[in-house]
Amino acid sequence: MAQDVEGQFALLESMKTSIDFQLEQFLLNPKQAASGEVARLAKDVVLAGGKRLRPILILLAYQASMGKDMEEILPLALAFELIHTATLVHDDINDQADTRRGRTTIHAGHGIAKGIIAGDWLFVQGFGLGGRYDEHIVNIMAHCCAEIAAAEYRQLNKVLDISTTPEDYFSIVKGKTAGPFAAGCQAAGLVAGLSSEQADKLFDFGMQLGIAYQLVDDLLDLRGDERMGKPRGADVYEGKMTLPIIHALTLSHGEVRTRLAEILERFDDSYFDEFMALLHQSQSIEYVEILIKTHLERAREILTTFEESQARQTMLFITEVVANRDV
Amino acid sequence: MAQDVEGQFALLESMKTSIDFQLEQFLLNPKQAASGEVARLAKDVVLAGGKRLRPILILLAYQASMGKDMEEILPLALAFELIHTATLVHDDINDQADTRRGRTTIHAGHGIAKGIIAGDWLFVQGFGLGGRYDEHIVNIMAHCCAEIAAAEYRQLNKVLDISTTPEDYFSIVKGKTAGPFAAGCQAAGLVAGLSSEQADKLFDFGMQLGIAYQLVDDLLDLRGDERMGKPRGADVYEGKMTLPIIHALTLSHGEVRTRLAEILERFDDSYFDEFMALLHQSQSIEYVEILIKTHLERAREILTTFEESQARQTMLFITEVVANRDV
Repeated sequence: MAQDVEGQFALLESMKTSIDFQLEQFLLNPKQAASGEVARLAKDVVLAGGKRLRPILILLAYQASMGKDMEEILPLALAFELIHTATLVHDDINDQADTRRGRTTIHAGHGIAKGIIAGDWLFVQGFGLGGRYDEHIVNIMAHCCAEIAAAEYRQLNKVLDISTTPEDYFSIVKGKTAGPFAAGCQAAGLVAGLSSEQADKLFDFGMQLGIAYQLVDDLLDLRGDERMGKPRGADVYEGKMTLPIIHALTLSHGEVRTRLAEILERFDDSYFDEFMALLHQSQSIEYVEILIKTHLERAREILTTFEESQARQTMLFITEVVANRDV
Repeated sequence: MAQDVEGQFALLESMKTSIDFQLEQFLLNPKQAASGEVARLAKDVVLAGGKRLRPILILLAYQASMGKDMEEILPLALAFELIHTATLVHDDINDQADTRRGRTTIHAGHGIAKGIIAGDWLFVQGFGLGGRYDEHIVNIMAHCCAEIAAAEYRQLNKVLDISTTPEDYFSIVKGKTAGPFAAGCQAAGLVAGLSSEQADKLFDFGMQLGIAYQLVDDLLDLRGDERMGKPRGADVYEGKMTLPIIHALTLSHGEVRTRLAEILERFDDSYFDEFMALLHQSQSIEYVEILIKTHLERAREILTTFEESQARQTMLFITEVVANRDV
């Protein structure tokens, strides 16, 4: 088993390296490089790092669906990663984030105008790559991206809104984080030739995995994620209603709830210990940890309906390690 | 002839009405409306008005290429208009414009974040519609949009740069304004079944018309364009190097040039008369008026290589009236 784990990690690492290389080749291609400065700035963001989990899942979902021609699926995997990066560039403007992965963000270094346009350029490259596929694949991509935008609006409307419900939360997470996992896996299955019913299962797999992924993110924010270069409580600082917070607010009454609301309103690191004590009091961390397990278990169950393959094994492995963010 | 002119205007008006209707239908479709608030805000911007010159030219180029099935070309025409609107929404953020066509811009009314995301949503809808076409059409769209972004970067880098050359200017105009006219006409020809050589002629037609269109815009800025709700000199105020200014700076020497540079640096309406006197001294307005005629003449010459048709006549008519912005 230990060797198997090592082998799986090595496989993921080699997939990541290959995707990094393909992204670099694409962005250095004279056709893309001809855009000049905007192409250079966009390339630097794309190549600054990232786990490449989205494109890796797309390649694996294609192989688990018995797709054989990697050339056929690679543009879709790159398309989703470029669009993902486009949303990060625009998110960083909206969140007024000066750095990402330790590097100065485009808008912080070159102004909001260049940040907006660099994001647009990345969207265009993503859709350019995706546009070679059949209409129903393009429709899946476009629907997924429209849902991201809709979810971002809902999230903006819920900033510091202590009446945010778990349903609001899941609707945002499904649109913004889990939706792209789901759409990518579904589209990969369809490109491999799956029936729409089978591809829907890959959609569900991506959705369950993506929800778990976001819940892990919510917890990491409370621990501080050094790998992302983010201080603890960054979400709280931005007024983002994460599930641990929503859960604690739901369960708290009277003075405790008032105090929690006060802390959220004027959050800074000096409140952190008191804030965490309140979350523990309502067992909100434990609640989210259990939900992560539940959604990952569902993702695994869906995979069992697929034929045994190396790719399916690696997808199962991802559901095991995503909880620790080792991928 | 007078009756013919009336008939042509009526035809353009009916095409515009039809495009307005199709855009509204598309944006009210449950699939689009499901995005909620972002779809509503984006719809309001699209339907706030606009001459619809881009989609009209796409429909006409298709018909002039003997395309017979309007259902086949309509999504492309709508796609270009939606992408055009997306760039306007993002431009308005970058230009800090509070109103467009007399209405409050999204970012001014709802914050930059919602403005950025609404633009993204419109891009996505445009590419969703365009993605149903063959790969080479999608490539034309993607290339055109990448060029818009690259040209916007060049323009940002030239703000208030009095060493901007006419070559810089045309490279920006070709990418940002004329390129989408060119790409739209070319793609329409290809969808109709033209050879790539014939479609290239439509590309050239669109490019020449688009350059003339931007030059007219530069002059309108000096006159004030009440229909657009823009005060005179808005471009000068933003530090945009329009061709009349570049021409005047190129021809001026010594104290005159220093004074012109000073005025540009600290422009406001109180300098307007002196500024215009300097432009007239270097015959810069006349120069641009002649160039407009030259580019429109070239556009007409290209059209003569196409077979006589109602659509070709209307395209010729557009080259006649674009100088007065009656379309």
